[in-house]
Amino acid sequence: MSNALVYEGKAKRVFETEQPHTLRIEYKDEVTAGNGAKKDEMKGKGRLNNRITSEIFNYIAQHGVKSHFIRRISETEQIVQSVNIVPLEVVVRNIAAGSITKRLGIESGHRFEVPLVEFFYKKDELNDPLITEDHIKLLHIADEDEIKSLKAQALQVNQALVQLMNEMDLDLVDFKIEFGKDAEGHLLLADEISPDTCRIWDKTTGENFDKDVYRNDTGSLIDTYESFLNKLEALKS
Amino acid sequence: MSNALVYEGKAKRVFETEQPHTLRIEYKDEVTAGNGAKKDEMKGKGRLNNRITSEIFNYIAQHGVKSHFIRRISETEQIVQSVNIVPLEVVVRNIAAGSITKRLGIESGHRFEVPLVEFFYKKDELNDPLITEDHIKLLHIADEDEIKSLKAQALQVNQALVQLMNEMDLDLVDFKIEFGKDAEGHLLLADEISPDTCRIWDKTTGENFDKDVYRNDTGSLIDTYESFLNKLEALKS
Repeated sequence: MSNALVYEGKAKRVFETEQPHTLRIEYKDEVTAGNGAKKDEMKGKGRLNNRITSEIFNYIAQHGVKSHFIRRISETEQIVQSVNIVPLEVVVRNIAAGSITKRLGIESGHRFEVPLVEFFYKKDELNDPLITEDHIKLLHIADEDEIKSLKAQALQVNQALVQLMNEMDLDLVDFKIEFGKDAEGHLLLADEISPDTCRIWDKTTGENFDKDVYRNDTGSLIDTYESFLNKLEALKS
Repeated sequence: MSNALVYEGKAKRVFETEQPHTLRIEYKDEVTAGNGAKKDEMKGKGRLNNRITSEIFNYIAQHGVKSHFIRRISETEQIVQSVNIVPLEVVVRNIAAGSITKRLGIESGHRFEVPLVEFFYKKDELNDPLITEDHIKLLHIADEDEIKSLKAQALQVNQALVQLMNEMDLDLVDFKIEFGKDAEGHLLLADEISPDTCRIWDKTTGENFDKDVYRNDTGSLIDTYESFLNKLEALKS
């Protein structure tokens, strides 16, 4: 296929297709951390994230969460609905880990009484800062109703994912999602959901099933993601 | 007076008094910036901030905003109601300046369509980070109703202060306030309101009437605060 490249990010390339409002995403073998400070090429990563994201978007669709995902078409490619990405990273946290422990002095492993939703402003040159709902409104990123909808959808995704991970004996610690607006202006879950964008702990051993193995150099990213995909596929049998 | 010292901060000492629920605040001549990174002793600063804060708390009381302030008893001391300080810095911004310009990439001098309220978690060791309303709830700093009340009171203070500054031909760019809880658990404006805690620009010349002259080494802090106090007192004649 030789359609026009629409966008190239750290982990994906996005291409036009013959169909209107429809894009092809190609998952790359690149892995980065710390806003690009750490960077490597890892054979098989694109395949793993494409397969995992496809499985997860199918799963959450069955649990009532609509996303841009249409179907996986190859080991490294999927077809999605075209949306205008909202420049927010929406983070849901069930257990404290990573940046929030340093930012607010909360102990890693602390379980929140209710899931916490945080918004970060997607702007590389500002290092994706935390922003409040009032900031989102004044920057005209989203209005009051859209913010409510983003939070509600994020919590719905969380509920579905927590259930999925439970079945795999895993704890969903936190994850980051992104949303886009379709041609009618409706908010739709977009981007990906994979061990790149989630923090996942083994309920028994505490072992990481996510990109922290790469961030902290504690194991093989490919082996970890492969083992996560195996667990995910085992559920279907 | 030789009552027990309750607390010593960067700019003030707080003492018990003979009266229950009543404290004496002594304003110090110390000036700091950047969370204590820059620090100096300036003769007369305690007197200026005590007088300015007293004038301002009296003014906003006439505009319906209750505070912990009871009365000024000397050049550097005032009597206040005892409260338990809520560990939040409540910031109101009318015009973008300082940290928000770097944090969100908003141009300095940009006038917000509506005043913006931000909360920062008062914790020196964390460098007083920005926090969201959901963080405030999960840290049990304040509940939903208290957050609403803090925002409403902050905006009421802003309205009164903007009017006051207008009469002095000054723009109130932003300010930081703190609240405390009295014995009955009611939220009450506390701490101080002075050029230490406000950013104030001359409407015509853009000149600073606030601690930025010290932060940025652009003038004499004492002369600036003295001239602000003179403007404030001229309003009464």
